[in-house]
Amino acid sequence: MVIGIDMGGTSTKIGIVDEQGRVIKKTSVKTTLYPVFTDYVDALYTALLPVINEVGGMQAIKGIGAGAPNGNFYTGNIEHAANLPWKGIVPFGKLMSEKFGLPCTVTNDANAAALGEMTYGAAKGMKNFIMITLGTGVGSGVVINGQLVYGHDGFAGELGHVIMDRQHGRPCGCGRKGCLETYCSATGVATTAKELLKKDATPSLLRNVEWDKITSKDVFDAAMQGDELAKEVFEFTGKTLGEAFADFVAFSAPEAIILFGGLAQAGDLILKPIRESMEANLLSIWKGKVKLIFSQLPDDDAAILGAASLAV
Amino acid sequence: MVIGIDMGGTSTKIGIVDEQGRVIKKTSVKTTLYPVFTDYVDALYTALLPVINEVGGMQAIKGIGAGAPNGNFYTGNIEHAANLPWKGIVPFGKLMSEKFGLPCTVTNDANAAALGEMTYGAAKGMKNFIMITLGTGVGSGVVINGQLVYGHDGFAGELGHVIMDRQHGRPCGCGRKGCLETYCSATGVATTAKELLKKDATPSLLRNVEWDKITSKDVFDAAMQGDELAKEVFEFTGKTLGEAFADFVAFSAPEAIILFGGLAQAGDLILKPIRESMEANLLSIWKGKVKLIFSQLPDDDAAILGAASLAV
Repeated sequence: MVIGIDMGGTSTKIGIVDEQGRVIKKTSVKTTLYPVFTDYVDALYTALLPVINEVGGMQAIKGIGAGAPNGNFYTGNIEHAANLPWKGIVPFGKLMSEKFGLPCTVTNDANAAALGEMTYGAAKGMKNFIMITLGTGVGSGVVINGQLVYGHDGFAGELGHVIMDRQHGRPCGCGRKGCLETYCSATGVATTAKELLKKDATPSLLRNVEWDKITSKDVFDAAMQGDELAKEVFEFTGKTLGEAFADFVAFSAPEAIILFGGLAQAGDLILKPIRESMEANLLSIWKGKVKLIFSQLPDDDAAILGAASLAV
Repeated sequence: MVIGIDMGGTSTKIGIVDEQGRVIKKTSVKTTLYPVFTDYVDALYTALLPVINEVGGMQAIKGIGAGAPNGNFYTGNIEHAANLPWKGIVPFGKLMSEKFGLPCTVTNDANAAALGEMTYGAAKGMKNFIMITLGTGVGSGVVINGQLVYGHDGFAGELGHVIMDRQHGRPCGCGRKGCLETYCSATGVATTAKELLKKDATPSLLRNVEWDKITSKDVFDAAMQGDELAKEVFEFTGKTLGEAFADFVAFSAPEAIILFGGLAQAGDLILKPIRESMEANLLSIWKGKVKLIFSQLPDDDAAILGAASLAV
């Protein structure tokens, strides 16, 4: 058995995963409660110890895998994560290893998701694929020759930050303009909706939602009710993703691109425009040849499974 | 010793390379003379046999490596190459192996250049880098974890065909619009010069060149003489490459990007604007950290060495 840790800005979800890829025990810790990092590690230990004892004690556990924002696979450190309580560089892997007496492997959340998909999900048996996580941001994990791509420094696979519009790009949290993430994250979807609402007076169910509170969920709900403006938002989001995916294929010629996360829940509403746009933009040698599929990891446990697969 | 074959649309250059990476014997065959592919293989054999005998006979040769347009590493085939006399799919690797009784490995020219650089040139010891070939077209070879990236189908690394302008892109030979290659190949440089010449009446040495015959070499010569318009062409070319490189870094976080081919001869004229533009466009975690260097393979032998390294 292995331990999978999914560290988020608000809460940290922890699971014990058996050899069949089932999450057999779960617990959690509130990330924000521990401004001192060693206290956080202690809290993880305190939360896990009773659970570990229930499954046969520490000797039954092979290792720990952790997905963390800005987690670096090479060093085990979390480096300058904007949404965590700890500033600078935190030696997460090292402290966990010492505390638990177990090997602890760290990477970022999107990379963990890619590994999870390869170990337990839709990418089983695939040697070349790209995982795209559509959530608050747009993340990615790239697998080539059966290996996750970490690059020279451990930070490869920031595909949410390729530039889609060099002339009039939306400002991005990274300080630049026109990143894929500004169009295709949950926030990007809400922004697109507001831009379309502002453009003219087209009637839309979204006009009933308080302006500042429009979310991608509202857009999804409206689209499901046939709202034309909301459907146009998904068309635009899918078109932009498809254009980006065509460029990604030119880089690594993957067997598949796998979609994961909140926006991927939108099903055909997002998949159809992505596919059309990707096919229209692919070089002819790849037309009709790259699979576009949704993650097959169970929603609730996906991040834990992804992290656990690091330790497998 | 190994044999390196650099197959071009016009001529095929062949060399015998020793263990120190020196091209000790050379010969060539005119590609266009052989409309029947088996005749071409026979011609290679006829040309090589005396040279092989001079260096100790067939038993002194370990294998053959060949860089060919649309060469597929997985199959050894050349598939639908636009600029070669043979249409469809040609079993190059298989026929060569049978004819010579030696293993023959095939890939495309840019991939061969990347392997050559890793085996004999500037990328010695590097595990993660991207080779960009700037010539008639823009090609690329991507190395990750010390391995060349072939992708699912053998055709990965078509970075000349990422889209740089989605609104008003120049038409590309691939049938799409706005590809990097349309701006940064030798032809792209000439096109940029013509666009600038047309825009207004700015004086330029290039106005002395016959319109239809303006080449990237003319632009280079003019820039070296201080011609402002010609220098602006290199500024624009470098800016565009730098923007593309920043996206490539987000994909694979390479240690270096290595420039190879005709345009790379332009030295600082092209390197300086690329570097400025790449740095301006990189995510902050990579600023100042990605090397930008010229190939260190000897010009005349680079393609042969690249091909030979396939067989090493």
